[in-house]
Amino acid sequence: MTMLSGLLATIFERRGERRAPTNKRAQDIEDIARDLVAAPGDGAAQSLAEDMIERYRELDDAAKLRFFRFLAVTLNISPQAIRHAINAYEESPSRESYEAFMRASEPARQELIRRLNQAPGATEVLVGMRADLLRLGRMDPRLMILDSDFRHLFASWFNRGFLVLRPISWESPAHILEKIIAYEAVHAIDSWHDLRRRLEPEDRRCFAFFHPVMPNEPLIFIEVALTQSVATSIQSLLADGRTVVSSEASDTAVFYSISNCQAGLAGISFGHSLIKQVVADLSVDLPQLKTFVTLSPMPGFGAWLDTKHLERDGEGCAALRSLAATYLLHAKDSAGRPLDPVARFHLGNGAEVHDLHVDADTSPTGLHRSAGVMVNYLYDAPNMKRNQERFTASGDVMAADRIRSLCSVGEPVLETVGAR
Amino acid sequence: MTMLSGLLATIFERRGERRAPTNKRAQDIEDIARDLVAAPGDGAAQSLAEDMIERYRELDDAAKLRFFRFLAVTLNISPQAIRHAINAYEESPSRESYEAFMRASEPARQELIRRLNQAPGATEVLVGMRADLLRLGRMDPRLMILDSDFRHLFASWFNRGFLVLRPISWESPAHILEKIIAYEAVHAIDSWHDLRRRLEPEDRRCFAFFHPVMPNEPLIFIEVALTQSVATSIQSLLADGRTVVSSEASDTAVFYSISNCQAGLAGISFGHSLIKQVVADLSVDLPQLKTFVTLSPMPGFGAWLDTKHLERDGEGCAALRSLAATYLLHAKDSAGRPLDPVARFHLGNGAEVHDLHVDADTSPTGLHRSAGVMVNYLYDAPNMKRNQERFTASGDVMAADRIRSLCSVGEPVLETVGAR
Amino acid sequence: MTMLSGLLATIFERRGERRAPTNKRAQDIEDIARDLVAAPGDGAAQSLAEDMIERYRELDDAAKLRFFRFLAVTLNISPQAIRHAINAYEESPSRESYEAFMRASEPARQELIRRLNQAPGATEVLVGMRADLLRLGRMDPRLMILDSDFRHLFASWFNRGFLVLRPISWESPAHILEKIIAYEAVHAIDSWHDLRRRLEPEDRRCFAFFHPVMPNEPLIFIEVALTQSVATSIQSLLADGRTVVSSEASDTAVFYSISNCQAGLAGISFGHSLIKQVVADLSVDLPQLKTFVTLSPMPGFGAWLDTKHLERDGEGCAALRSLAATYLLHAKDSAGRPLDPVARFHLGNGAEVHDLHVDADTSPTGLHRSAGVMVNYLYDAPNMKRNQERFTASGDVMAADRIRSLCSVGEPVLETVGAR
Amino acid sequence: MTMLSGLLATIFERRGERRAPTNKRAQDIEDIARDLVAAPGDGAAQSLAEDMIERYRELDDAAKLRFFRFLAVTLNISPQAIRHAINAYEESPSRESYEAFMRASEPARQELIRRLNQAPGATEVLVGMRADLLRLGRMDPRLMILDSDFRHLFASWFNRGFLVLRPISWESPAHILEKIIAYEAVHAIDSWHDLRRRLEPEDRRCFAFFHPVMPNEPLIFIEVALTQSVATSIQSLLADGRTVVSSEASDTAVFYSISNCQAGLAGISFGHSLIKQVVADLSVDLPQLKTFVTLSPMPGFGAWLDTKHLERDGEGCAALRSLAATYLLHAKDSAGRPLDPVARFHLGNGAEVHDLHVDADTSPTGLHRSAGVMVNYLYDAPNMKRNQERFTASGDVMAADRIRSLCSVGEPVLETVGAR
Repeated sequence: MTMLSGLLATIFERRGERRAPTNKRAQDIEDIARDLVAAPGDGAAQSLAEDMIERYRELDDAAKLRFFRFLAVTLNISPQAIRHAINAYEESPSRESYEAFMRASEPARQELIRRLNQAPGATEVLVGMRADLLRLGRMDPRLMILDSDFRHLFASWFNRGFLVLRPISWESPAHILEKIIAYEAVHAIDSWHDLRRRLEPEDRRCFAFFHPVMPNEPLIFIEVALTQSVATSIQSLLADGRTVVSSEASDTAVFYSISNCQAGLAGISFGHSLIKQVVADLSVDLPQLKTFVTLSPMPGFGAWLDTKHLERDGEGCAALRSLAATYLLHAKDSAGRPLDPVARFHLGNGAEVHDLHVDADTSPTGLHRSAGVMVNYLYDAPNMKRNQERFTASGDVMAADRIRSLCSVGEPVLETVGAR
Repeated sequence: MTMLSGLLATIFERRGERRAPTNKRAQDIEDIARDLVAAPGDGAAQSLAEDMIERYRELDDAAKLRFFRFLAVTLNISPQAIRHAINAYEESPSRESYEAFMRASEPARQELIRRLNQAPGATEVLVGMRADLLRLGRMDPRLMILDSDFRHLFASWFNRGFLVLRPISWESPAHILEKIIAYEAVHAIDSWHDLRRRLEPEDRRCFAFFHPVMPNEPLIFIEVALTQSVATSIQSLLADGRTVVSSEASDTAVFYSISNCQAGLAGISFGHSLIKQVVADLSVDLPQLKTFVTLSPMPGFGAWLDTKHLERDGEGCAALRSLAATYLLHAKDSAGRPLDPVARFHLGNGAEVHDLHVDADTSPTGLHRSAGVMVNYLYDAPNMKRNQERFTASGDVMAADRIRSLCSVGEPVLETVGAR
Repeated sequence: MTMLSGLLATIFERRGERRAPTNKRAQDIEDIARDLVAAPGDGAAQSLAEDMIERYRELDDAAKLRFFRFLAVTLNISPQAIRHAINAYEESPSRESYEAFMRASEPARQELIRRLNQAPGATEVLVGMRADLLRLGRMDPRLMILDSDFRHLFASWFNRGFLVLRPISWESPAHILEKIIAYEAVHAIDSWHDLRRRLEPEDRRCFAFFHPVMPNEPLIFIEVALTQSVATSIQSLLADGRTVVSSEASDTAVFYSISNCQAGLAGISFGHSLIKQVVADLSVDLPQLKTFVTLSPMPGFGAWLDTKHLERDGEGCAALRSLAATYLLHAKDSAGRPLDPVARFHLGNGAEVHDLHVDADTSPTGLHRSAGVMVNYLYDAPNMKRNQERFTASGDVMAADRIRSLCSVGEPVLETVGAR
Repeated sequence: MTMLSGLLATIFERRGERRAPTNKRAQDIEDIARDLVAAPGDGAAQSLAEDMIERYRELDDAAKLRFFRFLAVTLNISPQAIRHAINAYEESPSRESYEAFMRASEPARQELIRRLNQAPGATEVLVGMRADLLRLGRMDPRLMILDSDFRHLFASWFNRGFLVLRPISWESPAHILEKIIAYEAVHAIDSWHDLRRRLEPEDRRCFAFFHPVMPNEPLIFIEVALTQSVATSIQSLLADGRTVVSSEASDTAVFYSISNCQAGLAGISFGHSLIKQVVADLSVDLPQLKTFVTLSPMPGFGAWLDTKHLERDGEGCAALRSLAATYLLHAKDSAGRPLDPVARFHLGNGAEVHDLHVDADTSPTGLHRSAGVMVNYLYDAPNMKRNQERFTASGDVMAADRIRSLCSVGEPVLETVGAR
C-alpha cells in the first residue's frame, strides 16, 4: 500500500502549472467552449480547459444560467444527424459507421465536459457546476436535459470502483472535520466539542467515501455507535454524560446518521455501497459484533398523520407505535413503494424493519417530522440479497413479527396517498 | 496532502470481501451478464459484478472470443429502438424523452462494463479484457465495434484529470521496478544492475503516470538524462563508465525513452500530457535547465531507405544525414502526415526537429530500423502551442534551419508512400 | 521518503502486546524497580518495564513522592564504590576497569530509566514522570538530584538529531490542533475559530518539533505571520478583519509566539534549533522573504519599572520607549546577563534588538508585564554566529543604532538587580 | 497513524542546510572537536558539529586512527578531578555538587559525541565511526575504552523504545532490498531472483527493525517461512520449485535466518526484541499459527567435532544426531554457557531445543561449520520467561525429551573447552 499512498500524494501537486494570465479572459466562455469542442489534440484541449475553468469561476449566476442554456441548446444533439448516422450504420455496420453514430448520438457538451476534466482540479469545479445547475435551473426543462448529461458522466466517474472508504476520527485533518460538521444532515453537530463526542470515544466510529481527485471533499459519511443492545433513542445515544462502552464489550453497531455531502452529485447513489462496506469492515475489526441496525427517523410520518387527521399526542404510546408500524408497512406511494423515503432507501438495500420506538427523538425536528418515533432497520447479511430481491420484485416490506403484529389486528386497508 | 495519501491507502483494502464460492460458477457468463444488465439496484449489481469478474478469469481464449461476440452482437444497439426514441424526443423534448433516447442509443454492453467496474479490482480486469479483445479479435470487424465501446469508456475513466504523475527511483517498490524492466519498449533494460544505472545516479530521472485504482501498474513512463549539452548518441548516454553530471551542473533534459505499459489502453493517449507535466515539474525543481529535447529513433527510416533502394552504409555520413532530414521533413503518408510514427507523435505535441545524429544508435535494432540515426525533438514551451496548431492545420514540420538546409539543395519532390 | 514515512507508521502499532493482568500488581513498585535493575537479559527486562510503567500509572501523588525518594536515595551512587573503581582504573586502565568505573559512577536509577524505556509508549510516561517530579519535588534538594538524571538522559534522547520539524496547518489532525490550543503560552488561543485564523490564511504559518516516539505530542511550536513590513503590534497582527497578504507579496516573516509544550522536558532547549530550522525552511520556500524578526514581549519590564518607581503611563510614548531601550540594553542580572528572560533567549541565539514599539500589546497581560511594549529581535543569518559569540563572550547586546541612540543621551549607569 | 507517518517524512528533509564550504576545512579535526566540547550554546555547537562531521568524512584510515587516539587519550576522564568531585558531593550533596560530579565522571568525548549528533544525518555517520573504530582499533586497549563510550551512548539511542518493526516485502523500496541482499549473513542471497523467492510468495515473510533517524538502514532482519509442519532442511525450505503453502493452511512459522546489519552497532542486542515482536505480530495476523521455531545452524559443531577427533561422515546419521545433541546440551564454555553461539542466543531468549536434523544444510558452509546438522529452537510463548530465568540462573538447557534421550545413554561427561 506504500506505493499507492505515496503515488497519490501528488494528485494535486501538479506543480509549475500556475498559469500566466492570458488574453482569453476577454473571450466569451461560449467561444472557449466552442474552441475546446473543436480542439484537435490533447495539448490545445488541456490549455483551453484550464482557460474555461478559470472563466467559469468568474461568472455570476445570470451568466452561469446563460452558459447552461448555451450548453443545453447549442451543444445539443441533432435528431437529423442521428437518424442519418443510424441509417448508415444499419446499412453498413463497421467500426467507422458505429463510431460515427456514437459521435452523433452524444451531444457535444458531453465531450466538452470530459475535456474540461483534463484541467487540474477540474472534477471539483464540474461537481460545483452541476450544483449550480440544480440550484438555478430546476424550473427549466431544457436545463434538466443538460443535467442528465452531467449525471450520466458523473455516474461513470464516481463509480463504486473508484471510491475510497476512510475512517473519520478525532485524528483526521481539521479541514475535513469542519466539513463533517457542515454536512451533517440528520442530527446537527453544533460545535467542535459535539463533533469530538461523536468521534473520539472508543464506542464511536465514522466512515466516509472519498474520490481520489477530490481528497478534501467527503462524498457521503455515516456515523456509528457501538452499543450493548439495539439503541432506542437518539438523545440517549448522544447524551453528554453517557457511559462509554469498551469496543470489546459491544455487540451491536448502530448506524444513526448518513449524510450526503455534495449537492452536485445528487442522484448518484453511494449509500448502499457505504453501508455494505462499513458492515464488512466492522465485522472484520470487531468480530464480536452480532447486530447491525440503524436508528432512523420516519420523516414522512408526521405529514401522513396530519393527512389522516390523527393526533400525535392524543393517541398514547401503544397507539402511536401501531400507527407507525402501519405507516411503514402499508402506506405506499403511487408506484407502490413505501411512502417513507428513509424506508425506501433501507428496504431497497435489503434491510428489514426490526423495531420501532416512541419518544425516541424528542428534538423539535424529530417531533415535527417523525412524531418522535424512530425505526431500527436491521442489516442482516445472510438475508439482505433475498430481502432486496423480494422488495424490488413485489414491494414486500420485510419486518420482524413484533412489528407485523402491531398493525395486523383490525387494521383497515389504507388507501395509498399521492407520490412524493 | 496527508489526507489524500492516507485516504487512498485503502483503495484495495476492501476487507471482508473475500467471497464464498457461489453456485454462480456453474452459470454461464452470458447469463450473469444478462442478469447484471437487468439488475435493479446497486446491491444486486455489485454482487453480480463480482461473480462475473471471477467467471471471466476462468475463461480460455475460445470462451473469451465467444463472450466477446455475445457482447458485440447480443448486447448491441437496436437501430429500430434508436429511431423510435429520437423521434419521440424530437416530438416532445423533455428530460424523460432525452434519457430514453440516451438509453436507446447506448449499447447495453456499455452499462454492463460500467457495472462490472463496481467490483473490487475490476478496472484492472477490464483493461486486461480489452487487451484480450485486441489480441483475439483484431480480424473480426464486429469485435472492433465492441472495442470502440471499451475505448470510449476508458477515455473517460483514464482522463488526464484522474492520473497521477510519480517519480520512479531506486527507492521505488521493487514490484513496480520489475514492471519498468518488463515494459521498457525502446532501449531494453537487461538486468537490475542496468535498471539501477538508469535510476540511481543524480543525473537520471524517471516518471510514470498511474491511475489511483491501479496503483501497482504504471500506464506510461519516461526516462530522462540530465546532461550538459544535447545528447547525440544513446550508447554514450547509457555507457557504464560515463561521468555523472551533478544536478546543478546540468543544463539540458534529454527524454530518451517513452514506453506505454498497458496493451488494454491502446489508443488512449498519455504521452503528450506526460511530457508536458515532466517539463513543468523539472523546470520547477531544476530551474537551471534550459533545454528539453528527446533522443528519439526514426523507426520508419530503414524501411523507407529500402523502398527507395538507397543503401544505408554506402552513402557516407553526410549523405545519410541529408536523407534522414528529407525523410523526416518530406516523407508523408496518404493523409499528408509525417511517415515516421515517432515524428508524428512529437510534432503533434508541438515539438520541432532540432538535430539529427548519424551513428547515434548502433544497437542491432537501431541499425535495422533507424539506420543508426537518431533525432532530437525540441520541446520549447513558448513555441509549443503555435507549433502544434500549425502542424495540425497545415502539416508543416517545424525544424531548425540546420536541418532544413540539409534537404533544401536540389531535393527532388518525394512521392508519398502508403500509410502505415 | 516513502520508506521512512511508511516505516514509522508502526511505531505505536506494536500489536499483540496487550498484556494479561499479572499478579505483579500486588507487588510494590520498588520491588519491581529492584528486579528491573537486576534483570539479566532483555526479555525479563522488557516484561518488568511494562509491569512497572503500568504500576506507576496507578500511583497517587503521595506514592509517587515516596517512589521518587526511593530512586533518589536507594538507587543513588556510592562514593565509596566510585573511589574504589576510579583507583582501580587509574592503577590499571583497561576496558574492564573503565566499564567498571562507568557502572559505579552512574546511579542505578539511570539504568532503570533506560530499561523502563523499552516498554511500548514508555518515553511519554517517563516525560510525564519528570513533570510529576518537578511538580511534587521542587522543594526537596534530594529530588532535584534525581531530576538531574532525568535531564541528563532526556538531553540525550531528545537530541536535535532525533527531532522532526513539521508544519502545523488547518489540515493537521484535530487531536494535534487541540494541543496547540492548550499549549499556546504567549497569546492565548480562545477557540477553534481563533486557531483557524492563525493557521489557514496564506500569510500564516506554524511549525512544531516532534519526537518520533511521541508523534501525538508537539514539543515546541512557533507561530509565524508573513507581512509586508516589520509588525509593530500584536493586536493588529491578529485582528479579525485584517487584510491577508499573499505569500508572494510578503517580504518579512514575523515570529510572534513560541511555546514549549512539555513540562517534563523543562531545561531541554529546543527554541534555538527551531528558529534556525524555520528560517532555513522559509528561505527555501519563499525566497522573497528578506527579513526574519520576532514580535516579542518584555516580560520583566513592568516589574523593573516598578522597582525603579517609574510610572508606566505618566511618561509619554517617547520616554517609555527610551526606558524600554535602557532596560533591554543595560539592565543586567547578577551574572551580567540581560535581566529580561526573552531577551536572554533571543540574544543568546544570535539575534539583535531591531526595534521597539509602544502600545504594541494592549492586552491586560501585555500592559501588566511589558507595559504594552514589544520588541522585534532580528534574525539575520549572516551575523548570527558572530552576534552569538560576542554575546556569550562579553555580554554585548547587539542592537540597531535607532535603539542604541534611545538610551545614549544622559543615561545614568543602572545598578544591576538581583538574578531572576 | 497518519500524523506519525506524515511527521516523520521530513526527518531528513532539513532543507536549506546545504552548507557553504567554510575555512574550517583547513582546521584540524582535533581543534574543531575541542571547540565543540567548549561551545557555550546550541547554535555554535550545531554549526561546529556539521563542520566536524564533514571533516571526518574526509579522513583516511591513518588520520581516523590518530583522531580516535585523541578522543581516547586527550578527552579522557581525570581520576584526580573525579576524586575531587565525589568528595565534594559526599561532603555536601546538592544538585550542584551532583552535577559537578556527573560532569567530572563522564569523559568529554561522550558530550562531544552527543553534540556531534545534532548535525543532520549525524547518527548514521557516528555508527559508521564506531565501525571504523572496531575495524582499526581492535588491538589497542585504549581504543577499546573509547568503544565503551560509543556503546554506552548507542545503547541509549537505540533503545528498544525507539525502534520500529517493519515488514520487508517485494513491495519494499529497491534501495532497502539491495541492503537485505548485502546484509544476509546466514544463507546468502545470490540475486534479485533469489531475493524475490524469499519475499514474494504468500508463505514467506521478512521483518526488520529500523531507527527513525536511519530510515534507509535496516538494523537487523529476520526471514520467516510459513509451513505445514516444522521444517527439517534449509535446502528444501528454499527450493526453487517447491509448493507454496497458502497463508491459511500454514500452522508453523520457521525463522530460518537472522542477520545483524550494522557493524557499528555490535554488542547492542536487537535479536531478542525482534523475535518477540515478530511472534506477537504473526500471532495476531495469522491466528492459526501454532508453532514458532527456528531452523538454525550449529556453527561451532564442526570445530568441536574436530577437537574431539570425531569424524563427521564416518559416524552415520544416528550417531551424528546423538553427537549433535550432546554438543548442544553439554558442551560449555569456561563461563558455563553453551559453547555454540547460536544456542547461547536462542536459549538466552527463552527458547528450547526442539529437534535436530542431519543432512539439513548441505551447502559447503553448512557442511563445514555445522557438519550439515540444523536445530529447531522452539519459541513457546507461555514457557519463554521461565526458560529464560532457569537458563540465566543455572545454565540449564531446556530441550525436548527426544533430544534429551539422544545423549542420555552412556554419555561420558564432557570436559569443557575453551571459551570462544
